[in-house]
Amino acid sequence: MDTVKSLSPFFEPNGIAIVGARSTPGFGFGLPKNLRDHGWADKTYLVNPNGGTIHGYPVFKTLKEIPAPVDLAVVLVPAPAVPKVLGEIGEHGIKNTIIMSAGFAEAGEEGKTRQARARKIALSYDMQVIGPNCVGVVNTANAFCTTEVMPEAYTPGKLAVIAQSGVFGQNILERVNEYGIYVSKAVTLGNRLVTNEIHILDYLHKDPDTDTIAMYLEGSADGEQLRHTIVKVTPDKPVIVLKSGRTSEGRAATESHTGSLSGEDNLYDGMFAQTGAIRAETLDDFTTYCRAFATQPLPKGNRLGIITGSGSMGALATDCAIKNGLTVPPLSKRLMAVMKEGAPDWMNTKNPLDVGPSGLFPRAFNAMMEDPDFDMILAVIAVPYSAVRFRLTEFTIEDFFFGGTLPLKERKWEKPFMIAVVCHEDLVSNFRERAEPGTPVFNTPEQPVRALAALWRYQNWKNNHK
Amino acid sequence: MDTVKSLSPFFEPNGIAIVGARSTPGFGFGLPKNLRDHGWADKTYLVNPNGGTIHGYPVFKTLKEIPAPVDLAVVLVPAPAVPKVLGEIGEHGIKNTIIMSAGFAEAGEEGKTRQARARKIALSYDMQVIGPNCVGVVNTANAFCTTEVMPEAYTPGKLAVIAQSGVFGQNILERVNEYGIYVSKAVTLGNRLVTNEIHILDYLHKDPDTDTIAMYLEGSADGEQLRHTIVKVTPDKPVIVLKSGRTSEGRAATESHTGSLSGEDNLYDGMFAQTGAIRAETLDDFTTYCRAFATQPLPKGNRLGIITGSGSMGALATDCAIKNGLTVPPLSKRLMAVMKEGAPDWMNTKNPLDVGPSGLFPRAFNAMMEDPDFDMILAVIAVPYSAVRFRLTEFTIEDFFFGGTLPLKERKWEKPFMIAVVCHEDLVSNFRERAEPGTPVFNTPEQPVRALAALWRYQNWKNNHK
Repeated sequence: MDTVKSLSPFFEPNGIAIVGARSTPGFGFGLPKNLRDHGWADKTYLVNPNGGTIHGYPVFKTLKEIPAPVDLAVVLVPAPAVPKVLGEIGEHGIKNTIIMSAGFAEAGEEGKTRQARARKIALSYDMQVIGPNCVGVVNTANAFCTTEVMPEAYTPGKLAVIAQSGVFGQNILERVNEYGIYVSKAVTLGNRLVTNEIHILDYLHKDPDTDTIAMYLEGSADGEQLRHTIVKVTPDKPVIVLKSGRTSEGRAATESHTGSLSGEDNLYDGMFAQTGAIRAETLDDFTTYCRAFATQPLPKGNRLGIITGSGSMGALATDCAIKNGLTVPPLSKRLMAVMKEGAPDWMNTKNPLDVGPSGLFPRAFNAMMEDPDFDMILAVIAVPYSAVRFRLTEFTIEDFFFGGTLPLKERKWEKPFMIAVVCHEDLVSNFRERAEPGTPVFNTPEQPVRALAALWRYQNWKNNHK
Repeated sequence: MDTVKSLSPFFEPNGIAIVGARSTPGFGFGLPKNLRDHGWADKTYLVNPNGGTIHGYPVFKTLKEIPAPVDLAVVLVPAPAVPKVLGEIGEHGIKNTIIMSAGFAEAGEEGKTRQARARKIALSYDMQVIGPNCVGVVNTANAFCTTEVMPEAYTPGKLAVIAQSGVFGQNILERVNEYGIYVSKAVTLGNRLVTNEIHILDYLHKDPDTDTIAMYLEGSADGEQLRHTIVKVTPDKPVIVLKSGRTSEGRAATESHTGSLSGEDNLYDGMFAQTGAIRAETLDDFTTYCRAFATQPLPKGNRLGIITGSGSMGALATDCAIKNGLTVPPLSKRLMAVMKEGAPDWMNTKNPLDVGPSGLFPRAFNAMMEDPDFDMILAVIAVPYSAVRFRLTEFTIEDFFFGGTLPLKERKWEKPFMIAVVCHEDLVSNFRERAEPGTPVFNTPEQPVRALAALWRYQNWKNNHK
C-alpha cells in the first residue's frame, strides 16, 4: 500500500462532503463554519436529506447532487445511520472517510455489532476510515482541520500528534501550544475501523512537515506490525509514546473507552525499548518530552553539567539524573581553574556547580555551556520571590543569570540546555514568555532532567542501531 | 531535655538581639525593619560596634548595653567573626542563637574548622543554635519571622516545614501558599551546629498549632535518633519527607552544600517506611503531599472511585492508582442501577466511570461520593478550551460537573476527594481559585492519584501500628 497516496485526502482533500451537516448547534453546524473561516469554503459540500442552506452553503440532499469531485467524506450522523451512509459513500467512489459519531465498539454489544458491520462495508469498498468516535485531523500547513481548536493551534510546527481520543488530542495540542510548540499534523484515531496508528506512523514518517511524532496509545491494532513500523521511523524521527493500560485494571478501562484490546504491558515496554521509541510514564512526561524533542538538539553523550544557586535543588537534580541513566561528572581541571578565578572562598567547584550568591552565575554558565566535557546543561534557578518582587523592573532572570535574553534566543550552543526556575509561579511564567520555546523552562529540578535523559536515550539507541 | 522549653525562644522570644545589624542593604538591614513591620519593635535590639541608629532603632555597641532581657540572638556577622560573637552571646547568658552567616562546613576545610570551633563554644554554654548557613524561623501565630517572606506567608496554617536550606524553605512556603495552604512554623536548619531536625520534630510534635510536618532533609544528624523521634510523631501527625542524596552523586552534592553526611539511601528508605513517614520522590510529590495532608481527611480504605468524561484520562489515572497500591473496584450493583437510570446506551457503568458527554456528571459524582464502597474519589475533567472559551460566563467547571461551588466549599464528605482538570491552563487556574484550598486541583490525571495513595499509605501504617 502506498500510504502517502492513500492517506493524503485526509490531510489535503480536493473536495469534502460533510454528511450530517446541521442547522442546529453541534459538530454538524460548527465544522462547515470552521472550514469556511480557514479558506476551505470552495471545497466544502454539505449533505443533509433536509436540504436548505447552512452558513450560506447550499445543502445537498444526497452525495450524488454534489457538482464536483469529492475525495473525503466527514460523517456526523448518529451511530445507527452510519453503516447505511458508509455504503453510500462507497458507492459514490469516495475512498477516505472520517467518522466522528460515537456509539460503536466503545458502547456495549450493540455498538460492537454496528462497528463490525461498518468495517465490512468499508473494506468492501477498499476505503480508508479514520474513526468512528474521534474528531478527525488537523493539518496546519494548509489550515485543514475537522474539529474546533484554539486559533494558535493553526500555527505550523514540526511535531505530529497521534491520539486515540478526541479529547486527548485536543488536550495535547493545547498543552504544547502553551509552551510555544506547534504541530504539523494531528490525528485522532478513535476506534480505528480501518485506518490505525500504524498507517498514520507510516504516513508521518514520510511527511516533510513532521520532525517528531508523539503518540498516545491505548493498545495497538497489530503489535507486530507496529514494531516493524516504529523501527523504520525511529532512525529518522523520534517517536514519543504514552500508552495507558499498564495494569490489567487500566487495560479494562481502555477497553470500555475506544474498544481497544491493550495486550500485556511488558510486551509493549520491551518493544518500545527495542525499537527506540521513547515511552513516557505519565501525561506530564509526555508533554515534557514533546517540548524537549521539539526544541533541543540531541546530546552527543550523557554527561550532564548542572549549575545552580541552590545546593538542595542541585542535589535533587543529580539524584534524578543518575536514576535516569545520565552521569554528573566532576568539572575538568581546566574548568575548575576558570571557575576558581575570582570566586569567593566558600564556593565549591564541583558538579552540580553551586555558585550561591557569588554573582558568578553568568560567567559559570557560559563556561559550562562551552565546555566540551559536558554533553548537556541544566541551570536551576531558585530565587525567593520576596527577595525580588519589589524590583522586578531591574531584576530579570535572563539578565541576572544568563547575561541577557540574547543568548537564550540565539542558542548558538550545540548541546541541549534546559532551565528549572524553582520559584514563585509569577516569576516562572514571566520568564517563560521570553525563554520559550527555544529553551524549555520547568518549575521543578527533576522534570528537565527527565527530559534531557529522554533525549539521551534516543541518541543512545541511534548510536547502537546504525 | 525538655525540647519545648529549650526551643521556644526560637519561636516566641521575649527579647531579640540582632548581632550584625547594618545600615547598608542586606539581611542586617532588612531584618530589623521586618520585625518592626510585624509588631516586634519593642522586643528587638540591634547590636553593631559602630552604634548609631537604623530604622529608628538605637544600635547598641555590645550585648551588655541592651537594657532588657534577651533570650534569642540572631547572628549576621561574617563567618570569621562568628566564633567570637558566639562566645559573647554565651557570656551574656543567651541560650538560643540563630546563625545566618554562611562560610562553615559547606565551604571547604577552613569552614569546617570554623564550624568545629563554633560548635565547641556553643556546647560549652549549653546553647541551642539554629544554623549557620540558614535564614532561621517563621512562626505565623505571632508573626515572628527572621527572614523576608511574602505577605501571605504570615497567614496562620497547620502545616509545619523543616528545611535544611533557606532557599528551599522559602520555595516551599511560596509553593504551598499558592495553593492556599499555610504554615504554622517553618525552620531552616542550615549546617545544624547544635539544633537539628530531631529537636525540631520533637518540638513540632508537641506544637498545638501544627497538624502536619513536612521536612526536606539532605542527611540526618543521627539516623537512629531520627527513627526514634519519627516513630513517636507519626501516630499523631503525618511526617512528609523529601530526602536528597538517593544516589552517591546526589550525596556528594549535599555534602558540599550543607556539609551533611547523607548515609546510604536504602537505610533511609527502610526507616521511613517502618516509621510511617511519607517519603516524596520529587519536589512535585513533596508539594502534592503537603496539599493532600493539609486539606483532606484520611481514607478508611484504598478503594478509589474515578469519574471522568475522558476514557483516556481515566485509564491513565487507573494505571497510576494500581501502581501505587490503590484498588479501582467495579461499581456496586446498587450504584450501577442508579447510574443506568437515564443514561444513554453508550455509557458504561464501570470504574473509571466515563460519563462522556452524557450530562450525567453531577449526578454520578454525587452518587459516587455517597457510595460506601469507595474510600476516596477522583474526578478527572477534560474539556477542550476551544469548546468553551466563548461562553466562559455561562460555563464553569463547578456548575457543569459538580452542581455548583457549594459542595466543593462545604465538603460534607468524609472521604478524600481531588480533581484533575486536564485542560488549558486558563481553565485550571480559574477553577483553582474557587475550589482550593478545600479541594486540591491538579492538571494531570496521575498527580492527584499519587496524593490519594500517600494518604492511604499513612492510614494503612496507622492501622498496622495501633
